[in-house]
Amino acid sequence: MSSNSRSYDPEESFMTDVANFFDTAPPLKDRSVISKKLKEFINHNSHTAGNGASMRKIVCVTSGGTTVPLEQRCVRYIDNFSSGHRGAASTEYFLKAGYAVIFLRRRGTCQPYCRSLPDDPLLECFESTNDSNIRVQQSQAEAVKKAISSHHAALEAGVLLKLEFTTIFEYLQMLQMTAVALRDLGPRAMFYLAAAVSDFYVPWETMAEHKIQSAAGPLDMTLAQVPKMLSVLRKDWAPLAFSISFKLETDSQILLDKASSALSKYNMHAVVANELATRKEEVTVVTLHGKTCIRREPGTDIENAIIQLLAERHAAHIQDTLQNQAVSCQ
Amino acid sequence: MSSNSRSYDPEESFMTDVANFFDTAPPLKDRSVISKKLKEFINHNSHTAGNGASMRKIVCVTSGGTTVPLEQRCVRYIDNFSSGHRGAASTEYFLKAGYAVIFLRRRGTCQPYCRSLPDDPLLECFESTNDSNIRVQQSQAEAVKKAISSHHAALEAGVLLKLEFTTIFEYLQMLQMTAVALRDLGPRAMFYLAAAVSDFYVPWETMAEHKIQSAAGPLDMTLAQVPKMLSVLRKDWAPLAFSISFKLETDSQILLDKASSALSKYNMHAVVANELATRKEEVTVVTLHGKTCIRREPGTDIENAIIQLLAERHAAHIQDTLQNQAVSCQ
Repeated sequence: MSSNSRSYDPEESFMTDVANFFDTAPPLKDRSVISKKLKEFINHNSHTAGNGASMRKIVCVTSGGTTVPLEQRCVRYIDNFSSGHRGAASTEYFLKAGYAVIFLRRRGTCQPYCRSLPDDPLLECFESTNDSNIRVQQSQAEAVKKAISSHHAALEAGVLLKLEFTTIFEYLQMLQMTAVALRDLGPRAMFYLAAAVSDFYVPWETMAEHKIQSAAGPLDMTLAQVPKMLSVLRKDWAPLAFSISFKLETDSQILLDKASSALSKYNMHAVVANELATRKEEVTVVTLHGKTCIRREPGTDIENAIIQLLAERHAAHIQDTLQNQAVSCQ
Repeated sequence: MSSNSRSYDPEESFMTDVANFFDTAPPLKDRSVISKKLKEFINHNSHTAGNGASMRKIVCVTSGGTTVPLEQRCVRYIDNFSSGHRGAASTEYFLKAGYAVIFLRRRGTCQPYCRSLPDDPLLECFESTNDSNIRVQQSQAEAVKKAISSHHAALEAGVLLKLEFTTIFEYLQMLQMTAVALRDLGPRAMFYLAAAVSDFYVPWETMAEHKIQSAAGPLDMTLAQVPKMLSVLRKDWAPLAFSISFKLETDSQILLDKASSALSKYNMHAVVANELATRKEEVTVVTLHGKTCIRREPGTDIENAIIQLLAERHAAHIQDTLQNQAVSCQ
């Protein structure tokens, strides 16, 4: 806006932070494997169902928390709490709604169709028989059978791709790869960003190489802010995709304010606002058209209603975008 | 030592820190259940095998890392990396050596007899059959069968008690309860403290109640040192028990120095020194009698040799203690 080239440009400064983050992040180990999987998955799902507006939609569901290493040879890290139940449940309902799902999950968090199982299903659901075989305990038989068969069915049909991250560096690089790979799908792609992403991190190059020593008294740490990649996703990586982010707060007072401000600040299509204590019973979906409060109905998961609402809005988004494109081509 | 009551007494100041830690920690939710389990387990194993020096020995194996919550309604926390493989493997070899084991494990980390299984054994080891049943994949059949049957056998024989923690507050309270419960066993008890315990923490009463907000720029944190409870374990909780701690460092230069200094500082009977990169191949057991380097032998785990050495030293410790007691009773 200003002709003074020395004036502070927050946009430019932000883009420098983003570039720095990726330039200094430890590179993904299996980048080429992930890239190949994404390409094959998207290709498979672009040819298996319908065309135009009726083509199969692909959603990237992110799930679980990211970690921030405090040491390069990582012994200590900061973690964000997230069981991954929201992402796993949502994946099930997206698959049911006919979507293909890229499930970008924190290693070790909840898997689709496994939500009702105990933490250690192998040790807690099975027992030895007298002839030294093993069998599922009767009380768990249905849940175990459903988990394994539904899960394998989705994988075999090629409508579920699972990718795993641990650190914030892995997560953001994989999200970027996924977004860029989905860019050509335009409005048919959706991002459902349920992962609990770290707000703060220690830039890799300023990080201690070795384990921080405890003898020197209390530990003082200064963490830098993670650049808000939502803006970059919307602007550069996949501008036409339907994008939903999440706000989790423990204080209901500031939750809706923060959700609304995230909507405009990052140019999201919707923000799902949830409070830590009540998030399985009630959420508010905030869009430019207003706020919709969703409550869990008896006998089902709240994700059922969330995905139903978002799938409708997504369909409208596809129609709008295709119409606008048609108009601008005339 | 000094008659001046105002002089600084490091021992007194330390005991104040310890008392403060426990006084301000959030109380264990299932304290009475844990207490009952410990009592029954110790009772069962004090009457099932031999008497005097030949009575069954009980070891408390701690395993996995502790977390330090950064907020009271916990969204963010600092975690210590530890897969729990060392503790799980050691538990198997202690059971094989005839010990009863109290396995104090970080939730979600490795379980005994499950080390060779994939991360998600249910989804990765099983498959659906055509008649909509499920079965173990052939390649995994032996590993899965062994995991379930060995695990259940140990539980059924009453020689394995599993307790679970997540935070540093839970861990130290459970360790204290276990130690006090084992005190009467005198030298027959062993502590094998393989858990990766946080060095720093945020005292509960100074902790933010709600989620820390990210809008305010970089995050500055000051963490207090966790009082070194090893000294208290040795001095007050279970003074006659044979106690082994672990030192993990990423820098081999400082590892042995720190192991030796831990031995004298906390009055341990042995310190197992391991380096992050090589810990599955080589460790050094540091005792007052010198350093013993142990290397993994082909076809077995390094824990096999570690437990063999420690069981011998433990037997000698029991003999010594009982002889000393006999002498002092004459």
